[in-house]
Amino acid sequence: MKNIFAEKMTPFRMIIGAYVFSMLLFSLLLWLPISHQPGHELTYIEALFTSVSAVSVTGLTVIQVSDTLSAVGIAFLALAMQVGGIGIMSLGTFVWMVFGRKINLSQRLLIMVDQNQYKFSGMVKLMRNILLLALGIEAMGMLILGTYFLRYFDSTWEAYYQGGFAALSAFTNAGFDVTGQSLIPFAEDYYVLFVVITLIFAGAIGFPVLMEVREYLTNRERFNFSLFTKVTTTTYFLVFVLGAVSIWALEFGFYYDGMAWHQQFFFSMFNSATTRSAGLSVMDVSAFSMPTLLLMSGLMVIGASPSSVGGGIRTTTLAVMFLTIRSFALGRSDVKVFNRQIDPEDKQRTFIVISFFIVGLLAAITLISAFERGNTEVELIDIIFETSSAFGTCGLSTGLTDDFSTPSHLLLMCLMFIGRVGILVFLFSVKKKETKSHYRYPIERIIIG
Amino acid sequence: MKNIFAEKMTPFRMIIGAYVFSMLLFSLLLWLPISHQPGHELTYIEALFTSVSAVSVTGLTVIQVSDTLSAVGIAFLALAMQVGGIGIMSLGTFVWMVFGRKINLSQRLLIMVDQNQYKFSGMVKLMRNILLLALGIEAMGMLILGTYFLRYFDSTWEAYYQGGFAALSAFTNAGFDVTGQSLIPFAEDYYVLFVVITLIFAGAIGFPVLMEVREYLTNRERFNFSLFTKVTTTTYFLVFVLGAVSIWALEFGFYYDGMAWHQQFFFSMFNSATTRSAGLSVMDVSAFSMPTLLLMSGLMVIGASPSSVGGGIRTTTLAVMFLTIRSFALGRSDVKVFNRQIDPEDKQRTFIVISFFIVGLLAAITLISAFERGNTEVELIDIIFETSSAFGTCGLSTGLTDDFSTPSHLLLMCLMFIGRVGILVFLFSVKKKETKSHYRYPIERIIIG
Ligand SMILES: [K+]
Ligand SMILES: [K+]
Repeated sequence: MKNIFAEKMTPFRMIIGAYVFSMLLFSLLLWLPISHQPGHELTYIEALFTSVSAVSVTGLTVIQVSDTLSAVGIAFLALAMQVGGIGIMSLGTFVWMVFGRKINLSQRLLIMVDQNQYKFSGMVKLMRNILLLALGIEAMGMLILGTYFLRYFDSTWEAYYQGGFAALSAFTNAGFDVTGQSLIPFAEDYYVLFVVITLIFAGAIGFPVLMEVREYLTNRERFNFSLFTKVTTTTYFLVFVLGAVSIWALEFGFYYDGMAWHQQFFFSMFNSATTRSAGLSVMDVSAFSMPTLLLMSGLMVIGASPSSVGGGIRTTTLAVMFLTIRSFALGRSDVKVFNRQIDPEDKQRTFIVISFFIVGLLAAITLISAFERGNTEVELIDIIFETSSAFGTCGLSTGLTDDFSTPSHLLLMCLMFIGRVGILVFLFSVKKKETKSHYRYPIERIIIG
Repeated sequence: MKNIFAEKMTPFRMIIGAYVFSMLLFSLLLWLPISHQPGHELTYIEALFTSVSAVSVTGLTVIQVSDTLSAVGIAFLALAMQVGGIGIMSLGTFVWMVFGRKINLSQRLLIMVDQNQYKFSGMVKLMRNILLLALGIEAMGMLILGTYFLRYFDSTWEAYYQGGFAALSAFTNAGFDVTGQSLIPFAEDYYVLFVVITLIFAGAIGFPVLMEVREYLTNRERFNFSLFTKVTTTTYFLVFVLGAVSIWALEFGFYYDGMAWHQQFFFSMFNSATTRSAGLSVMDVSAFSMPTLLLMSGLMVIGASPSSVGGGIRTTTLAVMFLTIRSFALGRSDVKVFNRQIDPEDKQRTFIVISFFIVGLLAAITLISAFERGNTEVELIDIIFETSSAFGTCGLSTGLTDDFSTPSHLLLMCLMFIGRVGILVFLFSVKKKETKSHYRYPIERIIIG
């Protein structure tokens, strides 16, 4: 018996199993009466949706957290976000290290994963490092925001509670809030926005990048950043800037009409950062016009770095896609960037991630629009926005998540789950053992496109 | 001077040039006063839109053809469709034969393109074959439909005129009509629908397939269909059946409510066929509900076979995409189908076509929704439908094409143009000469997805 279990239990299936287990566990905990405020109840579907959303650090919600959950419930929620955020970073990083041994990450990272004994001891070391780094950043965020929040809240406890939750929510990119209205109360406080954007970056830029930066800071002379770090950081910030400029261009004269330039500047920056894929908001997102909501859906689909708390197709996927098109148009057969060549295997993965994501997203949008056919509240743009938000595990919403019907909620949960686990891990988990074929078929060309 | 011209004038640029020239020529011809009915005028933008739509055999239109164009104008329009349809078949087939010499098309096809002298003599032979085949099929269609139409129209001339135009429009998948309401007058005449669907198939299945079928019919014993023919035909009909079933499932109890089963059957079949990418309609498409319109947008994006009159990403692209995902999930490194292996180069092209198409489509939808921000007539689903229809050169419309503003019209023209020319040809035309690099960069892996 044990043998069959061990044989079937690939690392990928273990990851899937860990997520399923956490989601079910927290759904039960959030379902307990002790987790609710007096007079409020949750259906199991609501508890499950909240749990899936928290563990996948998405932040879509069908309940008003601050009105519905008790202190205990909020503690469970925070724990779910923490488990989700840190689990993702460590499991994600671990998988890719074991998996693509040739990824030239920093020496310190590689040492953690001993060549032959990575199964347990390396995992523990890695987890400890990630945990320390994450808790350190969160504690710093809590200290900075909490202390600053003393001017907003009456009690010291309340200020640090709000600051801590905001820091946790920003760094894990979970996007939940206990203010009842996300960051809207601080919309015009640029100091808060700046700190929150920084925390979002720290979570979304990817754990390997943080480790490399730390190593670089201690040893500037002999350090080379990996290709991964260069590609993902460049892409992340390039899309961030393009996103901010595009949001500004689309809303100039519309939502931004009559707003001071510095507020336009900070709103564009914040909205560009939060769509990738934090999910916190400083305004009612549905106040943006349709082209902006479409653009933001696209940004949510792009998402953050791999091995980070963010979702989406991820930065490197987008980068390899554009680099491949460019090198094709330039008549080159190989794809080059930063004096390196992209591995054909990584091109193949890029292709699969993009195809799978696009097909899944379009199918989900069509299905939800069928489920919500009789629902006059919900428009197509809401469905597109909500679906992109779930699949990209972003959590921004035009405010209609709880107006959707149960079939749509179930579908959104599936999207958050797959979006979180990652498409490749999902595919690897269903993957059979590599089949050695006895013979190769002849290659025959066909006409494409 | 001549040398520089010859050097810059790759076959791909010649194709682009031929399309641009035809579109400009027919825009001027349609702009002439002689092309209009008394009291009707066309702006140049309207004439250009009609010309681009006809030469690209799309069928989107900002004018009511039967009310606006004179007999001369309709003749120009028919000629533009014919030039577009036959040009596409021959140029498309020719390019792919020269280009991917290894494509194992039928011997007869290959013989036409003499190894070293394909530049002119092979082209002429190929053109003649395509022209004969196309005109033969169209004449047959005109005879069948025209004779049958005697029961619908008072004069023999009118019956054959209507039959001929419908046959031309169906076979070239152009989708224009001179009835003033597409095929709605014949919506309940299953004989007409059947003939039209057959003509649509003949145009959309691809010229190489037609040639191979002809060869098979004359020589059944020793004939093997090429991998291209097997893949494209299987995919074409598989998507056709899935599309019909899905349309039926989505509209059962809605648009189909109270309709006889045979009408539901024929409507589902016809709408599945016409979205790929004929553009004729037997009903007001906007009567379908939103999920169906989204599904149909997807079918328009998929489109028909390569080297056919249809557009879209094309069947083989879709097939290679799914086969690649499947073989990845099965743990295989090569992609197999019909006892053959797909060439990695074709996988790369599939990736590029899909990426380029998706990025272009999403950007166009966002831009048009910005252009139409103040237009209360136009909803998001209309924009998505219209954009997919233009890029997939399908020509179906929810009826709002002429409500769009001029910037949107210009953008739709660009989409029809690129959608028609094909993304790869478009990219090849901007392509520089293959650059031999003096050294190769080392490969470094990154994390994807
Ligand atoms: K999130
Ligand atoms: K068409």
